[in-house]
Amino acid sequence: MKIMSVNAGSSSLKFSLFEMDTKEVIASGYFERVTLEGSFYTIKYHGEKIREEVEMPDHTTAVEVMLDRLVKLEIIKSLDEIEGVGHRVVHGSDLYKESVLITDKVLENIDRFKSLAPLHNPANLLGIYAIQKALPNVPMVAVFDTAFHQTMSQERFLYPVPYDWYTKYGVRKYGFHGTSHQYVSKKIAEVLGTNTYKAIICHIGSGGSISAVRDGKCIDTTMGFTPLAGIVMGTRSGDIDPSIIPYVMEQEGLNAKEVIDELNKKSGLLGISGVGSDHRDIEEGMKNGNERCVLANEMLINSIVKYIAEYYVELGGCDLLAFTAGLGENAIDFRAQIVEKLRPLGITIDQEKNNFRGELREMTGENSTARVFVIPTDEELMIALDTLRVIENS
Amino acid sequence: MKIMSVNAGSSSLKFSLFEMDTKEVIASGYFERVTLEGSFYTIKYHGEKIREEVEMPDHTTAVEVMLDRLVKLEIIKSLDEIEGVGHRVVHGSDLYKESVLITDKVLENIDRFKSLAPLHNPANLLGIYAIQKALPNVPMVAVFDTAFHQTMSQERFLYPVPYDWYTKYGVRKYGFHGTSHQYVSKKIAEVLGTNTYKAIICHIGSGGSISAVRDGKCIDTTMGFTPLAGIVMGTRSGDIDPSIIPYVMEQEGLNAKEVIDELNKKSGLLGISGVGSDHRDIEEGMKNGNERCVLANEMLINSIVKYIAEYYVELGGCDLLAFTAGLGENAIDFRAQIVEKLRPLGITIDQEKNNFRGELREMTGENSTARVFVIPTDEELMIALDTLRVIENS
Repeated sequence: MKIMSVNAGSSSLKFSLFEMDTKEVIASGYFERVTLEGSFYTIKYHGEKIREEVEMPDHTTAVEVMLDRLVKLEIIKSLDEIEGVGHRVVHGSDLYKESVLITDKVLENIDRFKSLAPLHNPANLLGIYAIQKALPNVPMVAVFDTAFHQTMSQERFLYPVPYDWYTKYGVRKYGFHGTSHQYVSKKIAEVLGTNTYKAIICHIGSGGSISAVRDGKCIDTTMGFTPLAGIVMGTRSGDIDPSIIPYVMEQEGLNAKEVIDELNKKSGLLGISGVGSDHRDIEEGMKNGNERCVLANEMLINSIVKYIAEYYVELGGCDLLAFTAGLGENAIDFRAQIVEKLRPLGITIDQEKNNFRGELREMTGENSTARVFVIPTDEELMIALDTLRVIENS
Repeated sequence: MKIMSVNAGSSSLKFSLFEMDTKEVIASGYFERVTLEGSFYTIKYHGEKIREEVEMPDHTTAVEVMLDRLVKLEIIKSLDEIEGVGHRVVHGSDLYKESVLITDKVLENIDRFKSLAPLHNPANLLGIYAIQKALPNVPMVAVFDTAFHQTMSQERFLYPVPYDWYTKYGVRKYGFHGTSHQYVSKKIAEVLGTNTYKAIICHIGSGGSISAVRDGKCIDTTMGFTPLAGIVMGTRSGDIDPSIIPYVMEQEGLNAKEVIDELNKKSGLLGISGVGSDHRDIEEGMKNGNERCVLANEMLINSIVKYIAEYYVELGGCDLLAFTAGLGENAIDFRAQIVEKLRPLGITIDQEKNNFRGELREMTGENSTARVFVIPTDEELMIALDTLRVIENS
């Protein structure tokens, strides 16, 4: 049985086609500059990779090209083989606590929530409509970035702001990266051989978020009303003193949205270092003695350590600390630097065991109060798994 | 030897007159509605309290009235007895790392820093000018709310925002309540009998801030660029996802400053509970089963616990946890609720010993990893002590 996971952006479309019996990716592809000049795609399959420039004035065309090539390249014999499509949808508000079969009502709600995710939800809808047009009889599932975090209690998801901002406008912590945190949570249950556990999951990529998970349920997470909140990220600031906004508006002659734009796109590692948003640029800078790169790295680590400390106390201890996503899975020294600062909590790693990249592996130190793992995330597989589950149960 | 500490607001003036040999307050007073209609003052001395309505069109008149009454009420025989005046000044930027003798250059700088504290520094200057006019030959000292925190390292005081916001506009964490944190730090050294210690100081009043102090020096603190940042307060939100600001601007048709005003004046305990900003109102509401009061109390506690956890790890442990200011000194249950959540760090209190208000006393629990104290703060005395020290050394 084959399930496709789709992630549509405003000018892009990513897909992965899974054989669900083996959970293997049969093919994956990335369609770029959709709706723009110079659009092209890459598809990987059977260890091969093809790239082709094709005019794709809209998402519908991109989907037509994708499905056409899947058959032409003999990845599948016919479109009938695709028995379900799961769509990544960024914002499900507090309405969707898990993935759902896409109906007209669901589409309406995704559209309604665009005020909460103005860049993402409309783009996600473009992908859904395009696939719906091409594969009208295939069941589709919406998998929300926010869903996993909807188990947070009110005192964790509310902000200390006027209460009617919540009731009238939906101002609250939603949390994001939920699909990744959910996937890693499931893996943690497998690793520990129990569904009863306290875990802290550090999803550290160019975006990043940390979540506190008890028994598979999210208790707290660092991203908030939007993905700008929480830890220091590649280009995002995380939480700051809100008074900075009107002050910078006045100093720079910007409006509020422009300042928020700088906090989203020119802050974080990029803002501090002035060098780049990618941690590899920062590491390079550190090697060359660039003090602002040292500073950026230190501030990123401190912001992660701070939330681990917070969640350790919030959970009342921690059985397992997991690192995932680009940096979490691959930055060996970086992981070591973080855990080094967790000594006051009794969490340690074994430097030898920590010397690896990108695989599910334990590096717990002797006498550590928590087991420490890298657990590679797989949002596409999680989307496919959830899609299969929802289809089977509906 | 007598030293006066003065705290001038835009329409108020507070003073305390200390006999420095005994560190006792000989008299204290509060001049209210200065520059407004219906201005009046209260002065306490020798166990008495007088109140009088007097027209005070400016701070100079308020100071004249104050000095006149001090002599008339025979609190002092002549103004010559006042050998120094210490002024509370809110913002010393990163220039003033400790209290300084007031010179023309200092006045110029306090004025220059008004962009960072537009409500406070100009008001503080009014008090300084008025006293300077009345007591031209008495040495005066500026005691900054920000000074104690200027020992923070760069990676702690910088925000992960574009670096030139710091270099061009001074956007950084300054910290406030410094005089209180400094006073309590000194008391901690006395209590422990050593200057070598790790302490977390919780100054919890209607405003609130927590600081991490090592060996008498501030390592980190919760207030930031402005006093809006950090923990949940009576009417202030603390740090939030900055994206909330443009979103609420759009929903409510407000400008950025108006939203920040709501975050300063209508948020925190007041915003969540809808009942009041005073914790006693919240306690009352909780007794009456008001769920939003329960929520407000819980969110306040969580925000305090979160920073204690963070600073515990940042300091690499904690020798002493101190509660101070209105709530910290007097709210018995509240203190117990906070420390109860610190069990994962091994910090406990003895419920019996915790049953007191407003005195320097220990309530450490058995086997607690940190000693726990209430240490009443005294910002006025700290201002007087610093003033004496600066005058003697200059």
